[in-house]
Amino acid sequence: MGATLRDGKLAYKTYGTLTEDKSNAIVYPTWYSGRHWDNEWLIGDGMALDPGRYFIIVPNMLGNGLSSSPSNTPPPYDRARFPKITVLDNVTVQHRLVRQHFGIERLELVTGWSMGAGQTYQWAVSYPDMVKRILPFCGSSKTSEHNIVFLEGVKAALTADDAWNHGWYEEQPAKGLRAMARVYAGWGFSQAFYWNQVYKEMGYSSLEDFLVAFWEGFFLDGRDANNLLTMLWTWQNGDIGKTPGFDGDHVKALGSITAKAIVMPAEKDLYFPPEDEEYAVRHMTGTEAELRVIPGVWGHFAGGGGNPTDTKFIDDALKELLVS
Amino acid sequence: MGATLRDGKLAYKTYGTLTEDKSNAIVYPTWYSGRHWDNEWLIGDGMALDPGRYFIIVPNMLGNGLSSSPSNTPPPYDRARFPKITVLDNVTVQHRLVRQHFGIERLELVTGWSMGAGQTYQWAVSYPDMVKRILPFCGSSKTSEHNIVFLEGVKAALTADDAWNHGWYEEQPAKGLRAMARVYAGWGFSQAFYWNQVYKEMGYSSLEDFLVAFWEGFFLDGRDANNLLTMLWTWQNGDIGKTPGFDGDHVKALGSITAKAIVMPAEKDLYFPPEDEEYAVRHMTGTEAELRVIPGVWGHFAGGGGNPTDTKFIDDALKELLVS
Repeated sequence: MGATLRDGKLAYKTYGTLTEDKSNAIVYPTWYSGRHWDNEWLIGDGMALDPGRYFIIVPNMLGNGLSSSPSNTPPPYDRARFPKITVLDNVTVQHRLVRQHFGIERLELVTGWSMGAGQTYQWAVSYPDMVKRILPFCGSSKTSEHNIVFLEGVKAALTADDAWNHGWYEEQPAKGLRAMARVYAGWGFSQAFYWNQVYKEMGYSSLEDFLVAFWEGFFLDGRDANNLLTMLWTWQNGDIGKTPGFDGDHVKALGSITAKAIVMPAEKDLYFPPEDEEYAVRHMTGTEAELRVIPGVWGHFAGGGGNPTDTKFIDDALKELLVS
Repeated sequence: MGATLRDGKLAYKTYGTLTEDKSNAIVYPTWYSGRHWDNEWLIGDGMALDPGRYFIIVPNMLGNGLSSSPSNTPPPYDRARFPKITVLDNVTVQHRLVRQHFGIERLELVTGWSMGAGQTYQWAVSYPDMVKRILPFCGSSKTSEHNIVFLEGVKAALTADDAWNHGWYEEQPAKGLRAMARVYAGWGFSQAFYWNQVYKEMGYSSLEDFLVAFWEGFFLDGRDANNLLTMLWTWQNGDIGKTPGFDGDHVKALGSITAKAIVMPAEKDLYFPPEDEEYAVRHMTGTEAELRVIPGVWGHFAGGGGNPTDTKFIDDALKELLVS
């Protein structure tokens, strides 16, 4: 949009030790509103992302409140003036970290959930010579129109609160954040998740308790409205076809991917439905790409680390991919 | 909730002529925010609901702005003070119209879309001796928890607008109505509908044009915020198990239905998914009930009359049911 982010900061955390030959690196970007610590459920001894074996870099997305964001950028590009950030912008600065700062030339794997999956695809398209394997889960290489509409609803709920004041608030627009949370609640988990009252197994006493404690709590937990709107714009505008050299041709960009891939949508994900990823895999003609659907009722949050069964399913696929 | 609606008005329109023996009556209730004229797409010469043959009564739901509603009830029970209305309340007053006013003892059919389907089930449970056949489409006999959550998002978006003022507004909270429309947009049609850009076939020039002209236009077209919240409460609390005599036992209420039934969810309906209606049909053990899924990408709006293919599918089923 013609704005420039000066002195941008990329916050990240690493797990494990980089080998001398720099051959054991993995990039695992964050997701919509997630912070690096929210990724840690998939990292651990004996897991695929084992810090005893791999050097795992978790870069925080621009706009997430830790990397440069509306909430932490000084004037004049603070708050509502924060520049529009693309998925490509995110991956470009991550690449700088990986290549220039760490001197890594090859990545064993890039993986991520949701918007992290979008960044995973972007890595594979932008740096085909660097990325050996990808495992994007519950995400997409181009944000679908339905997904854009879902996000329009989220945005409309947040910005309906006068306290938002077009981004020039002094205190968080709490009513808008709570409204946004309630909109999100219907999308994050599947119809069957609610039908089966799985939230009770998670320790919530009632549907309303789940809406307040889990969902409203989620968006009130240190989240900032401008940050959320920045990342929402990033999400809505995600499209690997916009990578330089592809002239907006999303299918061509998919065809350019050379990283070996397991693509994992969740069976009942309401905004990244499996059929969209089936389409993507069909067009990944330049590599060996497998569609492997995460079964079950957790919907989008199958990839959120809250359900041991789904976590194992993802971890098993990562293990399989890493030895192939 | 302990409130009483005094001098309640039921607005309705009839199509066709009641025979002398009063044997040709059909009840076809309205849906969330719908008015009787919004039902007319399914009524016509040569269609199942043929006014040349049947006497078709379309009662307007309480709260829809034509029947007693927050917007047209005088103080003290006006606006935010309007009583909570159940599906059972709606059907009770409709029964008074049919039985007492028209003197009709048997209905050939009750049918309806969405909340109209909920009223259809309620008719079959409350008045088993009166209802010969039912064809509820894109609705349910009990509002599922996921559906309740979807509606929480809609409600939160509307009421996030300060102009709503807890119902004591002088002008419609337009920002909230527009926000609600954007939330609804993702739910009303399926992911595949947007993927295929079916809105372009409908005459909308872009996704944003569809969101503004169709969706925002929908909720700004004479709709009243308190009316919408009244009907939303009715919807969230829909459950035939609450009918007197069933002690909250929804399955028992389903089992009590004696009307011959074709139950028609839409394949990709995001808030009344086919599996919920499959469950209902499985428990309709007291009658001949068939599950017949409306195929295609239109989602909930398969039952809205906007798509000739779906309209024919529903009309064909109605014809089949009416001669059986």
